[in-house]
Amino acid sequence: MHSNASSTDRPRRVVVVGGVAGGMSAAARARRLDESAEIVVLEQSGYVSFANCGLPYHLSGEIERRDALLLHTPESLRAALALDVRTDSRVTRIDRAARAVTVETATETYALEYDALLLAPGAVAVRPPVDGLDHPAVHALRTIPDLDALTARVAALPADGPRRAVVVGAGFIGLEAVEALHARRLQVELVELADHVLPPLDAELAPLLADELRAHDVGLHLGVSASAITDEDGAAVVTLSDGTRLTADVVVVNVGVRPASDLARDAGLDLGERGAIRVDADQRTSDPHIWAVGDAVEVTHAVTGAVGPVPLAGPANRQGRRAADAMLGRRTTPQASVLGTAIVRVFGLTAAVTGASQAALERAGVEHEVVRIHAGHHAGYFPGAEQVHLVASFAPDGRLLGAQGVGRAGVDKRIDVLATALRAGMTADDLAELELSYAPPYGSAKDPVNMLGFVAQNVLDGTMPQWRAADLDEVRATSLVLDVRSRSEFERGHLLEALNVPHTELRERLDEVRAAADGRPVAVHCASGVRSYIATRVLLAAGLDARNLSGGWISLTTARPDLSRTLEGAHA
Amino acid sequence: MHSNASSTDRPRRVVVVGGVAGGMSAAARARRLDESAEIVVLEQSGYVSFANCGLPYHLSGEIERRDALLLHTPESLRAALALDVRTDSRVTRIDRAARAVTVETATETYALEYDALLLAPGAVAVRPPVDGLDHPAVHALRTIPDLDALTARVAALPADGPRRAVVVGAGFIGLEAVEALHARRLQVELVELADHVLPPLDAELAPLLADELRAHDVGLHLGVSASAITDEDGAAVVTLSDGTRLTADVVVVNVGVRPASDLARDAGLDLGERGAIRVDADQRTSDPHIWAVGDAVEVTHAVTGAVGPVPLAGPANRQGRRAADAMLGRRTTPQASVLGTAIVRVFGLTAAVTGASQAALERAGVEHEVVRIHAGHHAGYFPGAEQVHLVASFAPDGRLLGAQGVGRAGVDKRIDVLATALRAGMTADDLAELELSYAPPYGSAKDPVNMLGFVAQNVLDGTMPQWRAADLDEVRATSLVLDVRSRSEFERGHLLEALNVPHTELRERLDEVRAAADGRPVAVHCASGVRSYIATRVLLAAGLDARNLSGGWISLTTARPDLSRTLEGAHA
Repeated sequence: MHSNASSTDRPRRVVVVGGVAGGMSAAARARRLDESAEIVVLEQSGYVSFANCGLPYHLSGEIERRDALLLHTPESLRAALALDVRTDSRVTRIDRAARAVTVETATETYALEYDALLLAPGAVAVRPPVDGLDHPAVHALRTIPDLDALTARVAALPADGPRRAVVVGAGFIGLEAVEALHARRLQVELVELADHVLPPLDAELAPLLADELRAHDVGLHLGVSASAITDEDGAAVVTLSDGTRLTADVVVVNVGVRPASDLARDAGLDLGERGAIRVDADQRTSDPHIWAVGDAVEVTHAVTGAVGPVPLAGPANRQGRRAADAMLGRRTTPQASVLGTAIVRVFGLTAAVTGASQAALERAGVEHEVVRIHAGHHAGYFPGAEQVHLVASFAPDGRLLGAQGVGRAGVDKRIDVLATALRAGMTADDLAELELSYAPPYGSAKDPVNMLGFVAQNVLDGTMPQWRAADLDEVRATSLVLDVRSRSEFERGHLLEALNVPHTELRERLDEVRAAADGRPVAVHCASGVRSYIATRVLLAAGLDARNLSGGWISLTTARPDLSRTLEGAHA
Repeated sequence: MHSNASSTDRPRRVVVVGGVAGGMSAAARARRLDESAEIVVLEQSGYVSFANCGLPYHLSGEIERRDALLLHTPESLRAALALDVRTDSRVTRIDRAARAVTVETATETYALEYDALLLAPGAVAVRPPVDGLDHPAVHALRTIPDLDALTARVAALPADGPRRAVVVGAGFIGLEAVEALHARRLQVELVELADHVLPPLDAELAPLLADELRAHDVGLHLGVSASAITDEDGAAVVTLSDGTRLTADVVVVNVGVRPASDLARDAGLDLGERGAIRVDADQRTSDPHIWAVGDAVEVTHAVTGAVGPVPLAGPANRQGRRAADAMLGRRTTPQASVLGTAIVRVFGLTAAVTGASQAALERAGVEHEVVRIHAGHHAGYFPGAEQVHLVASFAPDGRLLGAQGVGRAGVDKRIDVLATALRAGMTADDLAELELSYAPPYGSAKDPVNMLGFVAQNVLDGTMPQWRAADLDEVRATSLVLDVRSRSEFERGHLLEALNVPHTELRERLDEVRAAADGRPVAVHCASGVRSYIATRVLLAAGLDARNLSGGWISLTTARPDLSRTLEGAHA
C-alpha cells in the first residue's frame, strides 16, 4: 500500500509497535496532526496505555481499583482518535525492503505494510543468573499480568500465617514493591547487589533510606546477590551469596531491564554498544522509514555524555510526540539529552536525583566539587519544617552537574527546580540568584536551592575550603578536629578527640585553638555546616589553615553510620 | 575614622541602616568576608532580623510562640558575628562629605563615621486617604509592635460577643490577615479597590480565590475603597465608597507600601521616578561610598523592563549579600532583574505568580499568547490528585514571559520550576522537554509544566487556534459553539445555544456540525481543553474554521462566574 514517494511525503499508513508510553504518545500525536493517515498500533500484550508506574500502588491497595491503571482501551482509542489498536499482536519480523511487518496473533500470522514504522518495544526484565526462578512464588512487577499474578499470590496468603517476602533488587521499582508488600502486611527482606539501596543515589545519602526501611521492619541484605531459589513445602528459600537463607511466600525480582531491541537487531537496524536502537535527533533509526522511541533507544546523558538506554517514562512520552512530528514532516525540536531525573517514595521519605551522580562523575573523570546542605523545606519558624538533605555537584567553572535530595517534604520541588537549572546550563551564581516563591508555608527567603548556590560559590572561589566525611580518617590523623556546636549538642555525641569551642566563643578562645592545633590544619564542623562556616572564616582570618566539614555532623553520621554505633557517635 | 583611600580599599567601618532582611544579610556576609572590619547595624525599631513574613501566622496562632519570629537579637549577633547592633537607633541624616550619619536614640544624638554605608531602610506603609485612621480599632501588620497591638486587640474581644473585622487591601498580606483573623474566629469583611482579590494575579484566576474566601464566610467588597472610619460605641464603622457601612472591632489596613527613601533623598542620592533609590549592578548608589538594598531600591523587571521598587524578601536578602561582596571588593554577580515571584496561601488554596502578568504585558505593550491548563498535581490514577490551574504567557518566538497558578497542591513546585525557566530564558520548546521528577505520588510523565509547553507549541505554530473566555460574547454572536463533552457533562450546565457532539462521535457527525455551522467559524470547547483540541484538529482537517477554547469550560466559568448563576451555567 505504500507509495514509492520520498520519505518526506506524508505517510498514508503509520504502524506503531508497542502501545504504552512512547508508542501511544506517538500514535495520538500522529492522529492529531494527520486526520487522514491510517494508524495501526500493535501491542503484544492484552493491554495498551496502562499506567505501569502505578502497578506497585495497586499492589499496595493505595490505588484501589485495578481499572484506574487502564487509562485507555482499544475501543476508547478508536472512538477518540480513530486508532486501529490491535492487542495480543506480536510483531516477529520487519521486512525493510517490502516495508512490512509480520504480525502474529493467537489465531493468525499476517503481513502489514507501512509507510512509516515506529518502534516502541520498551525493555525486558533482566533475568538474573539464579537457579529456581521458575518457582511459583517468584514474580516480576512490570506488566498488568505480572501485577495480577502477584496480587493473587498475596491475596492467597493466610491472614494469620506466615507472610514473608523477599525483594531482589533495591532500585526504584524494588523499593516501591517493598513498600507495597509491607502495606499488605508482609515481612519483607530486601536483597541488593550494590553496597547501598537505590544504586542511582550516591552512597552518602542511601543510609537515610536504609534507616527508613529498617524502621519499617524491612530486613536489608546489601552487597549480596541471590544465588539460588529452592522449594520448601511450597515456600521459596532464597539463598544469598553470603550463605544467608531467606524463606519467602512471595519473591519479587527486579534487577534491571535491557532494551527490547531484538526485532530491530534482526532487521539490521543500527544498535549501540549496549544493545539500544540508535536514533538521530528526530528519533529516526538507520532506516529512513523507521523511527524508535522509549526504553529501547539510545540516548545521551546531558552531563556525562554517556550513551545508552535510560528507561524513564517522561523521556519516552516526549520522544513519542517528537517522532510523530518528524514522521509527519513537522518542525521538531531536537532530541534532548537525558538528565535521568527520577524520584521514589520510600515510606515517609522521598529520594530524587537529576543529572550526574558523584559516582557517575568519577567514572566519567569529570572534575567537580560537591556541596551539601540540610535546610528546612519551608521557613524554620513556621511549624512542621522538615529537613531537606541536598547534595549537588558543580564543575570548577560553577556549572551545575547533578543534584540529589532526600527528605520528608519538599524534595520533589527542589529536584525539579535543579533539573530545570541543569537543563539551562545554570551555574552556582545562577542558583544563588534564583527567585523562588516564598511565604512561610512554602519556602524560605533563601530557598535551599539558593543556599546550594551560596555554598557552591564559597567553595569554588575559595571563601570556604571544605573537608568531606570521606576524608575523616585522614583528617583525624593529621588535623585538629574543632567542633563548634553548643556544649549540649557536643555531649550528645562527638568525635572523641574533638575540641569543643562553641562558635559564639571562638573569637575569645582563638589562642586556645591555636595552641591545640599546634601547627596542624583545623578541621571544623558543626551540625549542618552553617555555624562552622562562620568559624572557618574566623580561623582563616586569624591565619590558621582551616576547613569546614561539608554538610557537617549530619552528613558525617549519615555517611558513616558506624560512628553512631560507638561512644563517640550521635546518641540522639 | 575613615581614610582618604580610594573606595576600592577595604572599609574599616561598615555602617548598615536597617536590621532586617537585606540589611542583616549584608552585615552577616560582610563579617564572614572580613573579620577585622567594624560593622555597626542601626535599627530604628526595637527588633532586628525578625521574621516579618511570619507575622500573620503568629496572629493566627499557627506559629504559637512570638519568640519564634525573633530570629536573632543584638546579643546573639554580637556573639556569632561580632556585629555591633544598635536598636531604637534612628538615622536622621547622612553627611556624605564627612562620611557620617546622625543617629538619634531616646537619650542621645550622635554622629557615626563610616567608610562604607549600606542603606536598607525598607518600605513604609502607604496611608490611604481615609478619615479616621487613628481609630483605636485600626491596625497595620508590618512590624512586631504592629503585631503585638493587633494581637492584644483581638485577645481583648469577648469570646461570645461581636468579633468583627474589616481588612482593607486584598494583597498578599491582606489575604494572610484575613486568614489569621478567621482563625481567631472573627467575621471578616475584605475591601479591595481593584475589581478582584490579589491584584498581582490576573483577573481570570482571582475568582478561584474569591470562592475560597466566600466558602470561609469572608465578605468581599471589590472595586470599592474605604472612605471614612467613624466610631460607634468603641467599634469602628468603615464606610465604603459605595455607601456600605461595615462595623468592625478590628480594622487591618494594608494598601501597599512605598520606598522608605527619605533619608537617601535628603542626602541627595539619585532616586528613580517612583521614589526608589537608584543603584548599579553592585547595589551602589550615586555616592561611591553608599550602597542600598531591599524594598527601598529600584530594580528592573526581567520581562517588562519596568523599573521601580519591588518589595520582596528574597531579592532583598540576595541584594544584601551582593552589596557586602561589592563593598569588600569581591567579585560580584551583577544585580539580577526581578521576576516578582510571589506566593500566598488562602485557606486551602495556594496562589503564586512569576514574571509578567497578562495585565502587565498589556500595559507594557508586549505581544503575547496565553495558554491555560488544568492538570492534576500528580498522576490522575493515583488517589488525591488536585487540579493545578496554570496560566502562562509566551512571546511569539516562544519565550516564556510569565506564569500564574492556583490550586490545592503542587502550585509552588510548578511556579518555582517556571520561575527558573523564566530566568533561563526558556521557550515553549524547552518547557516541553523539561525532565521533571515523576512517580505517581509526585507528578505525571507529562508534568503540567510540560503540558504548558505542548499547548504553547500548538498555539504558536498554528496547530491549535484558540479562542478565549474574554471573546465569549463576540464568539456567541458570530460562531457555532460546539461543546464536545459527554452528554452528562453537558446536561450539568452549558451555553444555551451550544451544539453538543461528544468528541468520540465527532467524526461520524461531521456533516451535522458542518450544517449547523452554516459557513460560520466553529468555537469548540470541552471541560479543560484536551478533548476539544482533538475535536478542533478533526474539524480543521475537514476544512472547517475551528478554534479551541483556551482552558475550556473550567477557565470560562472561572473567568465568567456570572454564567454559573444562570440556567446555562455549571450546576455542579
